[in-house]
Amino acid sequence: MSQAKEMNNAPQWTIKMADGTSETLAPREGPVRKAWNCLVRLLSQFVLKIWRFLQKAWSLGANDPRKVVHCLKVGTALSVVSLFFYMRPLYESVGKNAMWAVMTVVVVFEHTVGATISKSFNRVCGTILAGFLGLGVNWVADQSGEKFEPWIAGSSLFLLASAATFSRFIPSVKARFDYGAMIFILTFSLVSVSGYRVEELFALAHERLSTIVIGTSLCIIVSMLVCPIWAGTELHNLIVRNMDKLSCSLEGCVIEYFDGSAEGGKSEPIKNLQGYKCVLTSKAMEETMANFARWEPAHGHFNFRHPWQQYLKVGASLRSCAYCVEALYGCICSETQAPESIKSHLASTCLRVSSQSSNVVKELAKVIKATSKSSTIDSVVGEMDDAVKDLQSCLADLPKLLLPLPTPEVSGLEKAERSAASLATTPLLDMVPLVTSASLLIEIAGRIKGVVEDVDELADLAEFEPADQENSKHNQPTNKIAMQKQNEEGTQKALERV
Amino acid sequence: MSQAKEMNNAPQWTIKMADGTSETLAPREGPVRKAWNCLVRLLSQFVLKIWRFLQKAWSLGANDPRKVVHCLKVGTALSVVSLFFYMRPLYESVGKNAMWAVMTVVVVFEHTVGATISKSFNRVCGTILAGFLGLGVNWVADQSGEKFEPWIAGSSLFLLASAATFSRFIPSVKARFDYGAMIFILTFSLVSVSGYRVEELFALAHERLSTIVIGTSLCIIVSMLVCPIWAGTELHNLIVRNMDKLSCSLEGCVIEYFDGSAEGGKSEPIKNLQGYKCVLTSKAMEETMANFARWEPAHGHFNFRHPWQQYLKVGASLRSCAYCVEALYGCICSETQAPESIKSHLASTCLRVSSQSSNVVKELAKVIKATSKSSTIDSVVGEMDDAVKDLQSCLADLPKLLLPLPTPEVSGLEKAERSAASLATTPLLDMVPLVTSASLLIEIAGRIKGVVEDVDELADLAEFEPADQENSKHNQPTNKIAMQKQNEEGTQKALERV
Repeated sequence: MSQAKEMNNAPQWTIKMADGTSETLAPREGPVRKAWNCLVRLLSQFVLKIWRFLQKAWSLGANDPRKVVHCLKVGTALSVVSLFFYMRPLYESVGKNAMWAVMTVVVVFEHTVGATISKSFNRVCGTILAGFLGLGVNWVADQSGEKFEPWIAGSSLFLLASAATFSRFIPSVKARFDYGAMIFILTFSLVSVSGYRVEELFALAHERLSTIVIGTSLCIIVSMLVCPIWAGTELHNLIVRNMDKLSCSLEGCVIEYFDGSAEGGKSEPIKNLQGYKCVLTSKAMEETMANFARWEPAHGHFNFRHPWQQYLKVGASLRSCAYCVEALYGCICSETQAPESIKSHLASTCLRVSSQSSNVVKELAKVIKATSKSSTIDSVVGEMDDAVKDLQSCLADLPKLLLPLPTPEVSGLEKAERSAASLATTPLLDMVPLVTSASLLIEIAGRIKGVVEDVDELADLAEFEPADQENSKHNQPTNKIAMQKQNEEGTQKALERV
Repeated sequence: MSQAKEMNNAPQWTIKMADGTSETLAPREGPVRKAWNCLVRLLSQFVLKIWRFLQKAWSLGANDPRKVVHCLKVGTALSVVSLFFYMRPLYESVGKNAMWAVMTVVVVFEHTVGATISKSFNRVCGTILAGFLGLGVNWVADQSGEKFEPWIAGSSLFLLASAATFSRFIPSVKARFDYGAMIFILTFSLVSVSGYRVEELFALAHERLSTIVIGTSLCIIVSMLVCPIWAGTELHNLIVRNMDKLSCSLEGCVIEYFDGSAEGGKSEPIKNLQGYKCVLTSKAMEETMANFARWEPAHGHFNFRHPWQQYLKVGASLRSCAYCVEALYGCICSETQAPESIKSHLASTCLRVSSQSSNVVKELAKVIKATSKSSTIDSVVGEMDDAVKDLQSCLADLPKLLLPLPTPEVSGLEKAERSAASLATTPLLDMVPLVTSASLLIEIAGRIKGVVEDVDELADLAEFEPADQENSKHNQPTNKIAMQKQNEEGTQKALERV
């Protein structure tokens, strides 16, 4: 009965004959064969899944070989520390507590130097502090007689563990000493419940501490000497990369909107323009990196007291630009599109504003990348301001284009008038996304000025090298822009003469 | 000489006499007194700092008493586990390895139930897997003779530690098994370098595992039974709270813009309107909570397989609304403001769009909060659509207001004409932020529809209770809106008659 049911559920092949009758081919597999097939299917799915996972892992490693290097570093540090067990003289001096060195290496070794140092510092300090407190409490409990001993030990454990756990909720502690608080609780509870006498504890504490110091110093040495990954450099590069992405997105999306063909085929595929999304979501990453970077010694261009917090400010103002770029994308992807004729009225100025704004961001990225002030930044910002003013006056001219009847102000411009008459028939509603885009571009330019201020502050705080004056005078981009402007002015005058 | 220098640096009091001469009062403090003053100042600063820190900690606890409860829970769990050391029979069965139970409690006990379960699972599985692998490798090394033993142990440690470290970079592993991978490395290295014989290791593994199981089950029991904090509930509430904040910000800022006095003093202080900023930055939090929530058993309204991932989608579309609200704030805080007369032309429709949009978001928040579908959501969305259409037609009417000369279409409306004539003198540029705001409001309404879709999907996936049909018919908000609309239509007809 149940087999018959199963047969019904199984796939059936039906053959239609030439004479109209049809014959159903029932599957002839027995239950063993079916189970076998099922097993094979499951196995192949499993193998496929594993294969895909490995492919993903491989591409992850190929994209960022430093991750692979980090893994090898961890393996090396662990192998080195395990030597303590194989080399007899060392083994005898450290004893069974060499386990703690192994544990320290596993737990403390992090991806960046800053994180490793921070965890090491936390581990050592937490252990020392909790060790001393534990010894003190043990001594007091010892002195107070056998009756009170468990009560004192228990209540001190309860109180200190609760307090230390609570401290992990305080943001300033959480950011820097979260791990230390955990190690404090761990060490204190191990010491206070171990039941050793105070004299034994001193020997134990000495061994424990020396193994931890061996483990942490090994980690710090390996992470600093073998292909070091500095949290500070990562943060620095992240901000530069985000600036580049934002400027590409900003310029690209406006070109895309006004059709890139006019600009000489600059148009990129739309997926390349979504770089700004990384800026939107990089806050947590930036904060983590800034927290670790402050632990790092001087390296590369960065001193010990490099103003990492200022990078967070720069990141925040970049993000506020990115929010507007996101809104701009919304407008640009909107269904209602302005008619081409009105679009072209604003096209050149919008393109100029976007390219000048993205030039400013690129220049800022260069400033941060080279850690030297730029002498051209003022002129680039000036160009951006000019472009914004032009766009504003274009927007102010817009109603003239919409007037159905000639007015005294525009009567001189016959051409404009004629086109205006044709434009008046187009509903204003179609223009709204265009006006919004232009207005968002102006807003973005304003927010970019905020980024400029933050980068200026960073340059002052971090004592970036002063700008190279000679270089800037013959600087290409400025010349290009100036030439472009001259050309534009020439064209306009020519038009006016016509 | 150096003292004279110091005197120069010290603060000096200068008294101007009536006869025009001035007398300088040199400080008469000796070096001891100065050192004392300095010490007192440092101490008072230190005490002040500690005092402020304690105040901050107190307010943190007062704002969220559950944090305090969590700390007490950790203290309790640690105290209970330390009983193993004090109770002899238990002590003998578990032996010195009770340390691992303490360590497990310290490391595994997390703020939410999901996080605790996830860490416990990771710890147990990582230990078991690494233990078996370690035993296998030890056995192989044992068989291969003394010469090869350290090589086999060392190379297997190096390889497995590197591989496990690499796996922590793979996003899917990192999200769920990061801690397990660390425990795997830890256990494997402890087993492989411990140098025990295989028979000893079996006994050790048994003890270690039983202590870890005791520790983890204690943690899970305490975190689930004593004032449990469920990651799922937290995520649920976070999304609801974010929706409420977003709707308040959206409605509030538009009211603020068009001056709340017209709306009967609804205007709130501007700081209350910045709630949307929480939505912008809650991505990391949401992802963490969703990751932990999937480990949790059924609780409250949520089954074991509640679609937590869908909450992330809802969160993402909420965030895309918040980006536009951020841009809207930029427009509203813009320096150039449209003249009051034009503002009032759009005021009522803009206010309607914003209040209807925020009604939709509030309704969605209600749906999620009550985990039951809403029967009014369609009508509320319909109202929003109507408001958007009205706003669009208002925008389309805008150029009529700007015309300096009467045209056939508006010649009938004398009043409008006269005001139009006065408006034509105001530059269009001042209007750009207003048009942009209106257009952003339309965009926001569009994005809110995306949220509605995501919430609908969530309601289907999570099998929310069907809507209560009876209740909805006499639903107040809908009636209110309908009445308001009738009133508006009445007013318009009256105006037309005039």
